[in-house]
Amino acid sequence: MAGPSLSVKRYFPVLDWGRGYNGETLTGDLVAAVIVTIMLIPQSLAYALLAGLPPEAGLYASIAPIVLYALFGTSRALAVGPVAVVSLMTAAAIGKVAEPGSSDYIIAALTLALMSGALLVAMGLFRLGFVANFLSHPVIAGFITASGILIAASQLKHILGVDAHGHTLPVILGSLVSDLGAINWLTVLIGISATAFLFWVRGGLKPLLVRIGILDRLAGHLARTGPVFAVAVTTLAAWWYDLGEAGVKLVGDVPRGLPPLTQPSFSPDLWLALAGPAVLISIIGFVESVSVAQTLAAKRRQRIDPDQELIGLGMANIGAGFTGGYPVTGGFARSVVNFDAGAQTPAAGAFTAIGLAAASLTITPLIAFLPQATLAATIIVAVLSLVNFSIFRDAWTYSKADFVAVTATVAVTLIVGVEAGVTAGVLLSVLIHLYKTSKPHMAVIGQVPGTEHYRNVLRHEVITDPHVLQLRVDESLYFANARYLEDRIYAMVADHPELEHVVLACPAVNAIDMSALESLEAINARLEALGVKFHLTEVKGPVMDRLKRSHFLDDLTGQVFLSQHQAMRTLGGAQQGARAAE
Amino acid sequence: MAGPSLSVKRYFPVLDWGRGYNGETLTGDLVAAVIVTIMLIPQSLAYALLAGLPPEAGLYASIAPIVLYALFGTSRALAVGPVAVVSLMTAAAIGKVAEPGSSDYIIAALTLALMSGALLVAMGLFRLGFVANFLSHPVIAGFITASGILIAASQLKHILGVDAHGHTLPVILGSLVSDLGAINWLTVLIGISATAFLFWVRGGLKPLLVRIGILDRLAGHLARTGPVFAVAVTTLAAWWYDLGEAGVKLVGDVPRGLPPLTQPSFSPDLWLALAGPAVLISIIGFVESVSVAQTLAAKRRQRIDPDQELIGLGMANIGAGFTGGYPVTGGFARSVVNFDAGAQTPAAGAFTAIGLAAASLTITPLIAFLPQATLAATIIVAVLSLVNFSIFRDAWTYSKADFVAVTATVAVTLIVGVEAGVTAGVLLSVLIHLYKTSKPHMAVIGQVPGTEHYRNVLRHEVITDPHVLQLRVDESLYFANARYLEDRIYAMVADHPELEHVVLACPAVNAIDMSALESLEAINARLEALGVKFHLTEVKGPVMDRLKRSHFLDDLTGQVFLSQHQAMRTLGGAQQGARAAE
Repeated sequence: MAGPSLSVKRYFPVLDWGRGYNGETLTGDLVAAVIVTIMLIPQSLAYALLAGLPPEAGLYASIAPIVLYALFGTSRALAVGPVAVVSLMTAAAIGKVAEPGSSDYIIAALTLALMSGALLVAMGLFRLGFVANFLSHPVIAGFITASGILIAASQLKHILGVDAHGHTLPVILGSLVSDLGAINWLTVLIGISATAFLFWVRGGLKPLLVRIGILDRLAGHLARTGPVFAVAVTTLAAWWYDLGEAGVKLVGDVPRGLPPLTQPSFSPDLWLALAGPAVLISIIGFVESVSVAQTLAAKRRQRIDPDQELIGLGMANIGAGFTGGYPVTGGFARSVVNFDAGAQTPAAGAFTAIGLAAASLTITPLIAFLPQATLAATIIVAVLSLVNFSIFRDAWTYSKADFVAVTATVAVTLIVGVEAGVTAGVLLSVLIHLYKTSKPHMAVIGQVPGTEHYRNVLRHEVITDPHVLQLRVDESLYFANARYLEDRIYAMVADHPELEHVVLACPAVNAIDMSALESLEAINARLEALGVKFHLTEVKGPVMDRLKRSHFLDDLTGQVFLSQHQAMRTLGGAQQGARAAE
Repeated sequence: MAGPSLSVKRYFPVLDWGRGYNGETLTGDLVAAVIVTIMLIPQSLAYALLAGLPPEAGLYASIAPIVLYALFGTSRALAVGPVAVVSLMTAAAIGKVAEPGSSDYIIAALTLALMSGALLVAMGLFRLGFVANFLSHPVIAGFITASGILIAASQLKHILGVDAHGHTLPVILGSLVSDLGAINWLTVLIGISATAFLFWVRGGLKPLLVRIGILDRLAGHLARTGPVFAVAVTTLAAWWYDLGEAGVKLVGDVPRGLPPLTQPSFSPDLWLALAGPAVLISIIGFVESVSVAQTLAAKRRQRIDPDQELIGLGMANIGAGFTGGYPVTGGFARSVVNFDAGAQTPAAGAFTAIGLAAASLTITPLIAFLPQATLAATIIVAVLSLVNFSIFRDAWTYSKADFVAVTATVAVTLIVGVEAGVTAGVLLSVLIHLYKTSKPHMAVIGQVPGTEHYRNVLRHEVITDPHVLQLRVDESLYFANARYLEDRIYAMVADHPELEHVVLACPAVNAIDMSALESLEAINARLEALGVKFHLTEVKGPVMDRLKRSHFLDDLTGQVFLSQHQAMRTLGGAQQGARAAE
């Protein structure tokens, strides 16, 4: 009997790893699941708060999506669920179409998850994963940093116990300041203590545990569960001292139960309004997820399939849309913990889902007394690790163009909003790239004496021939630079009436599109009218194959030489005596 | 005494050519001016009709703009004035904001000319001429062809004597068909005779004149004035037989006089509404103009300065806005005639302007009896020479990507409109270009036996080493392809556990942006975790300079070799015995 066919395996990677499942992989997966579950409970509640949703939405968004990703995803260690940046983008997107706290708001979140999921699955089926590549590194780095700042700012209100709103830095800070009179000092105490504790947990807990004799690996895992202690202690304090009565905002009643079956909206108006955000959330989520998955896979010489990742993430989001969640993606922190704790297969994710389902059946009544300030502290500590200003310095040093892109992304994200920020960054990167390639580097070259090498006359002492212009162009020729090449050649020919040959060296020309072909034909025709012959050298195989399909080679007044040296041996009669600058 | 400074000369080229003016250049310019004037009278009237403006607007648009271009432009032979494609675009743009025939319509045309002029001057001062390069050859060719079809279709109503409207092919043809019952057979007779005559003039008149003993050159000039005969004969017939009473639409009263001083609108609403069209008209006009100017300049080894051309064209359009005209540009046909007739300097343009001013003072009363069908015939014959379907075949043969761009441009222009057509074409070209460079050609290479050359293992019989992966990438590395490179390398390394070295050959890498640098660092780090060393070879000077400004070279586990052969002599211990496919 034949096994499942290859194409079925491609779309259901579970059929691949499921066959080798055994006791050893089970142990690894179970240990990882326990640790990740403990870590995810406060994180899920906190990110739901960030998205403006009821806390249980965060738990629900971590259950069905994890299982669906386990079935369809290709990464062995990726942990899918709510993450900070996507939660912020969700809040920004659905805040425009519905009032936070309303049932429309929750339905908009479900709809956004469904749309984002459908889009990701479609991109996977059509193998459009490459679209994510248009998010350049500076744009992503700038966007993540700006998002971290926005998120931290938006959580300050919970730490201070005041009201604030908005999705841009000026609005958030403005509304914070205007409400500072209403500050609640008990909330501030909880918020600041929790923040300080969590920062200490990040850096100081693990060394302490190791010093008191706990094994290094176990100490690392215990340190990851630090937020749970903060949650437990502040919840207990809130219950014991009845802090809710004292004006400390608590999470409040959370329904106990498994994720409900929910119904996203199919209203065309809502879909139209959410279309732009859905595209951006899908792509940002995919980029974050796939880079985490790739990092982890490479560590074990495993591979992920980016197009199948789109399907896995897409199914996870569709699942979130139908089970009370909101848009999810593969998170960095949780995936690393999952990997470090020994997860061997996506089954670890399924066990995590079971753990979270158990939690939402049992501990939700206790969560009612959890202060919102504690969750805000969890978020702030998590996102401040995203903020990284060194990208500005690195970009400034390496490339001014990249510096412009990162600065624009950060500024627009902070001042105009997350969607505008990503869009501005992508458009600017593309424009800068096109601008740079539209004025390619060109060098007049000559022979390095005694060799067959030809180099830039400005950098080297070389032999040239006054009757032959030898020009090397260091870029593929395409519409954006074709006319620039024409201009340059015409200018040089106009300045040197003694020219008889123009030789274009093409070792770095990887492609010639139809506009550039037209320009080459124009150059050839105009040079012919002036009695100057036009030659090419070092044309690459694929480029030559393509030129052969046009009339260019028939019309060419000169020849195509295999090497510059061969061209100059044929054309350079006056070469021996003539030296540059003599 | 010093002459005008260089920078003054740059902005006023007239100071340059004016100093060498003499009797010989004067004769050439005067002859050219007479011929161009005779050619321009019917053409100017016809294009104004196409733009939906009163006929005198065409004459006015040919007077002040020509003089201003003569002062500021750099081409010696370019003739500026109304042209078919820009007239069509003008009609499409102002038809959206005002009713044809109303005074608002005329003011909108003036405003569009002023905006377009201001934009061109600004682009010239900021040296933004390169923006025009984003119109690829297939997009321009497709757009011109589609515009020619639209123009010819829009003029059919004048030939048939029916009413029709619209700026897209389905609307124009639909409204033509629905009004076919109102066809005027006398108009059809005039229209078809004039069209047939003009087609014959194009092809048959010159040989006939030569046969009856007229010199070749003079015959050519006489043939160019053919449309004037058609105009004269049909005007005379309309007057003699009182064809206006018989339902033949005539041009009607045209005010006699010099171009009036007019006042464009400065209403912010109108400027906002016309901003998009003004940008497109400016760029399309500039591209058309500069390619004509360049063709003619190259024939005499003269140069044009594209940035100063922007200023010249911009001043011409500003002039059109204040003297009763509408957007103008350098026309192909008239410039070629001007050049062929012996124009030596821009003074020929000034003389043409004087001729046209004289015409608008004297002959305008005669024009009242000119049938619109004759002007429509002039337009149809002129624009059908723009229609060129061979671009489809050429693009299909040379490059499927260019075929997609040209097809989309033609289809969108015909069905949605001229502005949408150009925009779609430009966006699609950019996306196709980015897509192509996002999946660069990569080759695993090996040594050609007995040489120092390294070639693609798939194309050549080469020597490889199982412990060394030699990969050549044929594209600059930037954000759109950086992750693709990562994916490819990780996949290859995952498939070959015996690898010890990865060598990336970069002879065709003209740039490495920050995203690509990040990817190279990630590749280096992940390979290091697997015990594989990462090397680069044949890195270009400017790329190496930039890499030295980052930490990459410090962290690199391997080396940067000057040549592939040097790398393999150092790394390839097992090379001698191992041959590909053995």
